[in-house]
Amino acid sequence: MAAALLACDWGTTNLRAWTLDDRGEVVARREFDLGVSKLAPGEAARRFESEVQPALEAEDLPAILCGMVGSNLGWTTAPYADCPAGLSDLARSLVAVEAHAAWVRIVPGVRASGLAGAPDVMRGEDTQILGWVASHPDRAQGTHLVCHPGTHAKWVVVEDGRIARFVTAMTGELFAVLSRHSVLKGDGPTDDADAFDDGLAAAGEGDALAARLFTARSRVVGAGKSAASTPSYLSGLLIGAEVAAVPKLLGVAQGVPVSLLGDAALCGFYARALQRRNVDCETFDGEAAARAGLFALYQLGERA
Amino acid sequence: MAAALLACDWGTTNLRAWTLDDRGEVVARREFDLGVSKLAPGEAARRFESEVQPALEAEDLPAILCGMVGSNLGWTTAPYADCPAGLSDLARSLVAVEAHAAWVRIVPGVRASGLAGAPDVMRGEDTQILGWVASHPDRAQGTHLVCHPGTHAKWVVVEDGRIARFVTAMTGELFAVLSRHSVLKGDGPTDDADAFDDGLAAAGEGDALAARLFTARSRVVGAGKSAASTPSYLSGLLIGAEVAAVPKLLGVAQGVPVSLLGDAALCGFYARALQRRNVDCETFDGEAAARAGLFALYQLGERA
Repeated sequence: MAAALLACDWGTTNLRAWTLDDRGEVVARREFDLGVSKLAPGEAARRFESEVQPALEAEDLPAILCGMVGSNLGWTTAPYADCPAGLSDLARSLVAVEAHAAWVRIVPGVRASGLAGAPDVMRGEDTQILGWVASHPDRAQGTHLVCHPGTHAKWVVVEDGRIARFVTAMTGELFAVLSRHSVLKGDGPTDDADAFDDGLAAAGEGDALAARLFTARSRVVGAGKSAASTPSYLSGLLIGAEVAAVPKLLGVAQGVPVSLLGDAALCGFYARALQRRNVDCETFDGEAAARAGLFALYQLGERA
Repeated sequence: MAAALLACDWGTTNLRAWTLDDRGEVVARREFDLGVSKLAPGEAARRFESEVQPALEAEDLPAILCGMVGSNLGWTTAPYADCPAGLSDLARSLVAVEAHAAWVRIVPGVRASGLAGAPDVMRGEDTQILGWVASHPDRAQGTHLVCHPGTHAKWVVVEDGRIARFVTAMTGELFAVLSRHSVLKGDGPTDDADAFDDGLAAAGEGDALAARLFTARSRVVGAGKSAASTPSYLSGLLIGAEVAAVPKLLGVAQGVPVSLLGDAALCGFYARALQRRNVDCETFDGEAAARAGLFALYQLGERA
């Protein structure tokens, strides 16, 4: 297999890169500890040329990059594409950057009208979601609800193959700051299934979170549960509250099936939370979706 | 006025002490940086005798103490009184401790069945709430909804002068950890009224908090609001979500008037949030209520 493209999912904390052949199949894969949050201004271009391209022997290949690399923290700011946004909309808005390669493009993020009059935005999840659509033709028509869990989870309505609207829930970040800095901090594992399920049960309909969160404390102080079970309980409570309440913000009826897209372990927690609410869900690999999206955007953008 | 009692509201972060005359009027007042979170085991008794009593010339007075001083972090653990709990119930459960004074008692906390099968608890707010009832005879009968804002805010249903049930919302702590440790951190003031009102409007019905919180970020990144307004916005969002959703957890109907009890500035934020929802509220001074409760408990307990 001859490499034909260097494809990068370059996020806040991490950079994943693949060389792909002319059918989009993986030739080689590398990860780099080069998340844009760790880079100085101007550093992204330099590290790309000095580390990423050589590591994958990709100095002479065209390259396409998605994620926070297209923000003011990254290489250059790629203006957002507005919803509804499909692959062809993003392909029209690819941003060219200068590098030791003939063709290097950055994928724009996507913007939607958000809650409370402020626009909501994503960078990188868009490419995964549209790549997932491209590699699942049965999802190219009709309306689908996609959840991309993470520090800032995205709930996305896909209509006829385009991102129609979405909302961000900072569930992962709430978990991180409460686990580290509040009375709910704890050192236990996050895979205590009983505690996770207890957290799901305590989530109710995702209302009154500040009160429901306090049960993570009172169950230890007043009901004899182990402090080591707090992280799993807190995870269940926060994810349970999210899956109960956030889809409604998008005007999605209760019980609509959810396609989970992203990290397998994290999607597993969401699947358990959805099953508990009798919501059908199916899990898809985020990395494969990112590759598919980058390859499709390259094909569309390179022809343009 | 001759001092007849040393009364202390001894909490996690602070100790407030008063000498009161035989009608409960203040003779002298002092504050001490002796919150129980700063004390080593055994230190509470020693500092009480070496600092608090001498500063108020109260070595020979009876003394009554409420708050976290009655927890395992404090002087001694005073077992909780179960709801429903009125002044006479607490007076029966005062805990005697040894000190250089004839009569030193610690007020128990109060326990209720909480959410998710874990008991909810309070220590100190109980004395304020029952002191408020004692000094407002018109509240001694019927059902009243009281909110005591703070790090761990308490929403309390008072029925015929007794604490019937309550729930804790960790709104103040959420504000603190998000302001310091999340993408919502910011150094601005908390008294930007426009930003606070925008936060109230974004709180909705107190559902989907993880998503609504993200608007505190997107309004800055995507809608040009100043980062300095983030703390006020976040305060409005969290308090708005609390007042919208937490009373329902107690089975209280929308729109029932609220008695706010506590710090005047903090009660002011809650009053604004309630007014925005067309809920009547009245604010009462928490310190005066604590003194009234401690004095009433002394009178009942000393006779026992």
